[in-house]
Amino acid sequence: MPLGKRAYPIFIGDDLLARTGSFLKKKIHAKRIGIVTGGKVKKYYLEKCKSSIEKSGFAVSVISIPEGEKYKNLRTISAIYDSMVKANLDRGDAIVALGGGVTGDMAGFASATYMRGIDFIQIPTTLLAQVDSSVGGKTGIDHPGGKNLIGAFYQPKMVICDYSAFSTLPEREFRCGMAEVIKYGIIKSPSLFSFLEKSVDSVRGMKKSGMERIIKESCSIKASIVSRDEREAGIRAFLNFGHTFGHGIETALNFRKLNHGEAVAIGMVMAVKLSSLLGYSPSTLVDRVEKLLRLYGLPTAPPRGLTAINIWKGMSHDKKVIGGEKRFVLVNGLGKPFLKSDLKYNDVKSVME
Amino acid sequence: MPLGKRAYPIFIGDDLLARTGSFLKKKIHAKRIGIVTGGKVKKYYLEKCKSSIEKSGFAVSVISIPEGEKYKNLRTISAIYDSMVKANLDRGDAIVALGGGVTGDMAGFASATYMRGIDFIQIPTTLLAQVDSSVGGKTGIDHPGGKNLIGAFYQPKMVICDYSAFSTLPEREFRCGMAEVIKYGIIKSPSLFSFLEKSVDSVRGMKKSGMERIIKESCSIKASIVSRDEREAGIRAFLNFGHTFGHGIETALNFRKLNHGEAVAIGMVMAVKLSSLLGYSPSTLVDRVEKLLRLYGLPTAPPRGLTAINIWKGMSHDKKVIGGEKRFVLVNGLGKPFLKSDLKYNDVKSVME
Repeated sequence: MPLGKRAYPIFIGDDLLARTGSFLKKKIHAKRIGIVTGGKVKKYYLEKCKSSIEKSGFAVSVISIPEGEKYKNLRTISAIYDSMVKANLDRGDAIVALGGGVTGDMAGFASATYMRGIDFIQIPTTLLAQVDSSVGGKTGIDHPGGKNLIGAFYQPKMVICDYSAFSTLPEREFRCGMAEVIKYGIIKSPSLFSFLEKSVDSVRGMKKSGMERIIKESCSIKASIVSRDEREAGIRAFLNFGHTFGHGIETALNFRKLNHGEAVAIGMVMAVKLSSLLGYSPSTLVDRVEKLLRLYGLPTAPPRGLTAINIWKGMSHDKKVIGGEKRFVLVNGLGKPFLKSDLKYNDVKSVME
Repeated sequence: MPLGKRAYPIFIGDDLLARTGSFLKKKIHAKRIGIVTGGKVKKYYLEKCKSSIEKSGFAVSVISIPEGEKYKNLRTISAIYDSMVKANLDRGDAIVALGGGVTGDMAGFASATYMRGIDFIQIPTTLLAQVDSSVGGKTGIDHPGGKNLIGAFYQPKMVICDYSAFSTLPEREFRCGMAEVIKYGIIKSPSLFSFLEKSVDSVRGMKKSGMERIIKESCSIKASIVSRDEREAGIRAFLNFGHTFGHGIETALNFRKLNHGEAVAIGMVMAVKLSSLLGYSPSTLVDRVEKLLRLYGLPTAPPRGLTAINIWKGMSHDKKVIGGEKRFVLVNGLGKPFLKSDLKYNDVKSVME
C-alpha cells in the first residue's frame, strides 16, 4: 500500500496464518500483541495464529468480542479498551484483528484511539474483508444514526490475506465479497471483469488461480485509489459505486434481509441503469453486469415491497452526503467512473423500481 | 501552526468572541456549526459566541456537556455523538469547542471520530487551554486505566484565544495555566523566563501586555515543537517536562487535592532537582525555578503524606512509558531539554521526597 511513510505490505496466499509470527517480526516492534477476535473465527483460527505469534517471541493476550454487526458499537469498543488496559498494552504494543470486516473495523478503531494510536495488523478472514475493508484505513462502529457513523481513518501496519480461511466461510458471505470484486471490474478493470465472466468455476471453487488473481487485483485497485485520496476528498468516492443505492436499500430494510454485498449488487445494477438512462453508458453494459452478478449468485433487483421513495430516503443518512446533497458514482462505460451530484428524486426514481 | 496542508491560524486578542463568526467565515465551509460547551462558560460566553456565528450565516446547534474532568469519559462522548446526529451534522459541517481543556479534548475527540473526522475549531477560555491543550492536536478522554488513555491526534482548523474570558476564571485555574507558561520558559525560552520573573504584576493582573506576550510565546513554542513532531515520536516529549513526575503525583493522589498545573509545578521542581543531582544543571536553577513558581502562587513540594514510592508507582500508567520504561525530561540548564530513560527508582527517589 503506497502511502509514503505509512506504506504497508499486503501478503496474499494460502495458509499464511501459520506464518503470522514471522511476518510480524519483520515490521512490528511491540513486546505485547493483543489479538481481537470472536465467534467461529476464534474457534477455527485463533490457535494457529496465536501460537505462530508466540513462537516469534511476542507476549500474546486474546481480546474476545461477540460476533455480528449488531455488536459493532461503542459498548464493545469500551470492552475492548478495558481488555487492552488489563493486558497492559502500551503505546509501543500492537493489536491484531483476526476476523471479518466487523472485527477489523472495531479492532482498528480501538487501535486508532487507544493512547491516541497503537500499531495495528489486519488479518481478514472473509473475502469481503480481504478485498475491501482491510485495505484503505477506514475503521469504525455503527450508531443508531447511521452505519460506520463513528470512526477514524487509520492505516494498519500490515495486512495478511490467507484465503484458506474461506473454507469455513458460509457461501452467502463469499458471494457478498464477490459483489465488491465485480465492482472493481466495473469501475477500474475491464480485464478483471472479463476474467470473472470466463472463470466462474475457478473463482466459485476458490481455486488458487482464481483467489490470487481476484484478491491481488482488488487490493491493488483499492490501494491505488486510496493512496491517491486517503481521506476521501475526491476519487476515493469511486469506490462507492453501487454503494449509495446499496446503502439506501440497507437502511430502508433496516439492515435486515439482505447483506451488504447483496444490497451493493442491486445498487450497482441501479447505478449502471442510471448511467445508461442518462446516456453515459450503453444499455448492453446493464445486461453484462446483471448477467455477471447472477453468475455469482447475487441479486439484481430490490426485494418485493421496497419502494423507490424508501430507498431514496434511506440514502439521506449516508456519510457521503455533502451538505444534504446526494452524490452518485456513474460510469461512462466499463472502467470509467465519474461523480454526478445534481440529481433529484424524479431523475433517479425509475431505476430504483 | 505550521503543519503543511493542515496548517491552521491561532488568533490571540481581547474580546475576540464577539468576532467568532467573521473568523470562521474565512476558513470554514460548513453549513451547520455545533457548539460544544457547558457549565459557567456556557452561561457567560455562549450567547456572544453563538450570535456572532449566526450573524455570519451559519446554522448553529448547541451541544451541552456537564462540567468537570469526571465527565471526560466515553459516556459523555456518546451523548455528544447523539446530539451531533440529532443536529443533522454531516461530513461538511463543523464543531466549535467553547470552554476549557476538558471541553476541547472531548469536542476534539468527537470531531475526530464523527464520520471519521469533521472540521473542528478551538475556542479555549482558560489560560491552560490557550497555552497548552488547544494547540497541538491532542484530543481524548479518560479511562479508569489512565488519564487521556483514549484519544486521537486531530488538528483543529483554527484556534481563537480570547483572554478577556479570564475575567471569570477562578484564580487557582489561572495559576494552573501559569505552570505551563513557566514550563515553556524552562525548556525553550530563557527570555520568557526572565520576562515572567520581572513582570509579575502585568501577568498576574492579566494586563494586555502580559497576556499577549505569554500566550503568543507559549503557543509559538508549542506549535514549533509539535510541527516538528506531530505524533510524539521524539522532541515533542520535551513538552512533558515536569509531567512525568506530575502525572505520578496526580495518580498517587487519585486526581484529588491538586489540580494538573499544581502537580506539574511540583513535578518541574523534581525534574530540575534531578537534573542538578545528576550533574546536568547548576543548583542555582533549582532556586530560580522554585522562586518563580512561588511568585505565581504555585506549590513546589508534594503535599504531606505522599511518599516517593507512591509517586513512582503512579508514573507507571503514563502513556509516555515505552515498553514499561519511564522516560524523564531533564535540562542541561535553562532552555536545553533532553530525554533520559535509564533511571531506576533509587536514582530518582531523593527528589520525590
